[in-house]
Amino acid sequence: MSLLVLKFGGTSVATIPAIENAADKVAAEIKNGHKVAVVVSAMSGVTNQLVAYCTEISQIFDPCEYDAVVASGEQVTSGLLALALQKRKISARSWQGWQVPINTDIVHGKARIESIYAEKLKSSIMQGHVAVLAGFQGIAPDGRIATLGRGGSDTSAVAVAAALKADRCDIYTDVDGVYTADPRIVNRARKINKISYEEMLEMASVGAKVLQTRSVELAMKEKVTIQVLSSFEEAAGSDLPGTLVVNEDQIVEQEVVSGVAHSRDDAKVTLRNLPDLPGVAARVFGPLADAAVNVDMIVQNVSPDHKNTDLTFTVPRADLPKTLQVLKEVSKELTGMRVESSADVSKVSIVGIGMRSHVGVAQKMFTVLAEKGINIQVITTSEIKVSVLISEEYTELAVRSLHTAYGLDHGS
Amino acid sequence: MSLLVLKFGGTSVATIPAIENAADKVAAEIKNGHKVAVVVSAMSGVTNQLVAYCTEISQIFDPCEYDAVVASGEQVTSGLLALALQKRKISARSWQGWQVPINTDIVHGKARIESIYAEKLKSSIMQGHVAVLAGFQGIAPDGRIATLGRGGSDTSAVAVAAALKADRCDIYTDVDGVYTADPRIVNRARKINKISYEEMLEMASVGAKVLQTRSVELAMKEKVTIQVLSSFEEAAGSDLPGTLVVNEDQIVEQEVVSGVAHSRDDAKVTLRNLPDLPGVAARVFGPLADAAVNVDMIVQNVSPDHKNTDLTFTVPRADLPKTLQVLKEVSKELTGMRVESSADVSKVSIVGIGMRSHVGVAQKMFTVLAEKGINIQVITTSEIKVSVLISEEYTELAVRSLHTAYGLDHGS
Repeated sequence: MSLLVLKFGGTSVATIPAIENAADKVAAEIKNGHKVAVVVSAMSGVTNQLVAYCTEISQIFDPCEYDAVVASGEQVTSGLLALALQKRKISARSWQGWQVPINTDIVHGKARIESIYAEKLKSSIMQGHVAVLAGFQGIAPDGRIATLGRGGSDTSAVAVAAALKADRCDIYTDVDGVYTADPRIVNRARKINKISYEEMLEMASVGAKVLQTRSVELAMKEKVTIQVLSSFEEAAGSDLPGTLVVNEDQIVEQEVVSGVAHSRDDAKVTLRNLPDLPGVAARVFGPLADAAVNVDMIVQNVSPDHKNTDLTFTVPRADLPKTLQVLKEVSKELTGMRVESSADVSKVSIVGIGMRSHVGVAQKMFTVLAEKGINIQVITTSEIKVSVLISEEYTELAVRSLHTAYGLDHGS
Repeated sequence: MSLLVLKFGGTSVATIPAIENAADKVAAEIKNGHKVAVVVSAMSGVTNQLVAYCTEISQIFDPCEYDAVVASGEQVTSGLLALALQKRKISARSWQGWQVPINTDIVHGKARIESIYAEKLKSSIMQGHVAVLAGFQGIAPDGRIATLGRGGSDTSAVAVAAALKADRCDIYTDVDGVYTADPRIVNRARKINKISYEEMLEMASVGAKVLQTRSVELAMKEKVTIQVLSSFEEAAGSDLPGTLVVNEDQIVEQEVVSGVAHSRDDAKVTLRNLPDLPGVAARVFGPLADAAVNVDMIVQNVSPDHKNTDLTFTVPRADLPKTLQVLKEVSKELTGMRVESSADVSKVSIVGIGMRSHVGVAQKMFTVLAEKGINIQVITTSEIKVSVLISEEYTELAVRSLHTAYGLDHGS
């Protein structure tokens, strides 16, 4: 017998038939002799509707009331899934965040879970009752409902799994796992059977939107094994049904590169003719930080004469207008500075913990892109990731070429 | 300064513009210097949708989970109305049943309020914060959400008014008060300015569906003054905006008859050729009570020979098939008994506390109906009500004739 946490996202509980399907998944685990806690999202579209009600009243709203309104979506799903389980003669009950309780901090609208009182919950589960928890919510120190921010149900599930010391946290979603690349671009992309937390974090942060980053961080910290799998497809043959996200010591055969990710969420800014003096970077990035613009990749060219220099960096594409506004102010002080920008870029990354012990991985990436005539505009690296900024039109070509070059193609 | 409870029904909060309109009503009371608690229903149609989700899963469902699902509707409205008030620079916060708490009994799905802890709530209101309470719900002794049954928000409002010792409980709905008769039938029907609890109870139980009967009973017991008024119309001139439901000693000028109500919810059953012996009635009504059929009007004809008799009674029209089923069983024992039934009847009632001190009120009713050629099938009376069962096709004629005869016509 294992203790499992099963999490169903919005598309997995979008309709009553979908909820019935989720109940079947739970029933199968019960039949296998496992004890189960379930964490549910709101029915697909419901949260958006509730948020729209709030913003229709006012663009600026009290996050306490926003929380009371939007948390109702998960409340509904928790009750409905409990009913669907009872229909299958499985003892089940819903748990709202305040009933467990799941204690959060006071930051309404994007609260963090501080503690989960697991005793009563666990005792109920061990007595054979499936616990169906409303995800995305908890109770704040003010005694009111708090929500965790969009996508927070993944975090709820991992936190509940940690509190219950569950054997695994299964995240049911509309894809059947994490892929070596976006299958819509690379038709030879393979599902990854096992991926490490570190790799998953890099994949998540560069565009593979399967799991919320926060939930992966929490799973890594709390050593919770996550499985990502589809609620709509049955596992074929002897394959693992989804992707396991685990500690790297549990992955026996390390690939050098586990996946190729890409993101079109960035824009590039180049500042020309900057005085090459100490403190100049601070005079640029200070005001951007004040404006809550998150600068990502940065590259500064060495100036031949040590007088002037060029600085290139990326910002979230949605923040480009604000960025240019801030830089207009900055340019009043840094006379002579010229601002160029482009939203016409994409970030392509190779990710793999094997990189740590292999040399020449980055070099291969640059060679492959050069052979295809793709110009690299900016480069950043971490211990297990190399990212390059390229012209957006080359995105698919770059991802496919790298996927093949690193031996990731299905059947290769 | 008064302390007021304002209740808004489903149509009064059906959309965001309706919620904004409700917020305007609250704002007007605040501007008048009053302290306010608000009780809200779910947005019109939402509860039906949530109930439909439950029944789509299973016709027979756990009322605990049903409660968790359907109570979410009021939760949403409470948050949205608080937001709409804040937009008007009025300090406001939502209160869920479990937050107050509003303690109910354990009968999930149709719970009764047992106590309301008013201290924290009242202190918040007196500090100038409008309390927006989710109606229809409380917390049961098992720590889970309980709902009060359909229309329960009226009861929530009266209970909150009693707990807060509020000066008045204003029930905003889609009609502007209680009328002397259904205005759709009697175009000269007048709005009643003041009506006693007892009269309101009789009116409610015979078809004037403005207030839930339970809420009127509670108001009478707790001496809560109720005002029924429209959230969509402004009061014209010096008129009272709605109808006040009060203790009868607060009504100076008593009408003999306050209103004419009617109901098409009954069916008539006649048992012919019954043996005129003690215990026969029990052998008929016992099995009906066991089948949860609520028998209303009863009349037994005296038999000339003291051997056989006829018995006529009414049951809810929806229960007629079940009633006939039960009587089929009964007739196996009471051989010779013949069962006749008709759903083609309506019940017309005159209601008024003035009847107590006036004679000839019922006689006048019978005379008026006789003059119009309307046959009275069954009669029942209470201290302040006379009801007659007539053929359904005469409903409008009867109601209009009685309305005129008792001097209730507008302008008369």
